[in-house]
Amino acid sequence: MSIARAKLGHWHQIAANGSTTNDLAEILADDCVFHSPVVHTPQEGKTKVIAYLSAAGQTFSNTGFKYVREICDGPHAMLEFTANLEGIQLNGIDLITFDADGKITDFKVMVRPLKAVNKIWEMMAAELERQSG
Amino acid sequence: MSIARAKLGHWHQIAANGSTTNDLAEILADDCVFHSPVVHTPQEGKTKVIAYLSAAGQTFSNTGFKYVREICDGPHAMLEFTANLEGIQLNGIDLITFDADGKITDFKVMVRPLKAVNKIWEMMAAELERQSG
Repeated sequence: MSIARAKLGHWHQIAANGSTTNDLAEILADDCVFHSPVVHTPQEGKTKVIAYLSAAGQTFSNTGFKYVREICDGPHAMLEFTANLEGIQLNGIDLITFDADGKITDFKVMVRPLKAVNKIWEMMAAELERQSG
Repeated sequence: MSIARAKLGHWHQIAANGSTTNDLAEILADDCVFHSPVVHTPQEGKTKVIAYLSAAGQTFSNTGFKYVREICDGPHAMLEFTANLEGIQLNGIDLITFDADGKITDFKVMVRPLKAVNKIWEMMAAELERQSG
């Protein structure tokens, strides 16, 4: 069985629980890297990745967010999702890499269509600002 | 072995050959659907999908386009790629579904970051217009 397949249950629990800071701290590797759908520059280190993923958890609450397709192969998992952001239909993927201990080392997000990329940018920026305020 | 893994060699040949109309006609199912990174509405039917994928083949020629990661599971393959569009770094995925005969029934593309989504929109629109002109 793919490592990712074996470890993915833990991620689903965390996501279903709203991606809280404490839960994320448990599953992310210290040197984890996050790749945003909006910005090119990778966000490096557990603290930054927790900030992004918990903000995403808040942003996607009450949007009908759901995972609709799952592809696992070796250490990599691709989870496709859909959501509705204030009337804009969003389709995206989480591309997640696990290490042998089941910790996440790399987390990349892509989103379509263009309208949804713009919307997620606006909503995530507001949420990150709220967190830091 | 995953069906997608077994059939993916054919796709790689076609992509490496510049995604010509004739090659695409051979690998796409008649009821194939294309999902653009830019627009929400699916493009249905082999003729439309050929138009998009051959335009993409043209758009990505001489951009350093290369596949960098491959995840296969059952009928689904996710191919991650990178390219450089007139100075803008692009990272994206092809999410491809194969039927039992090795024909592609569904082809979805997502791209990051935002700058690259805007750039691919501009370049694809120009190429589709050139094709139809």
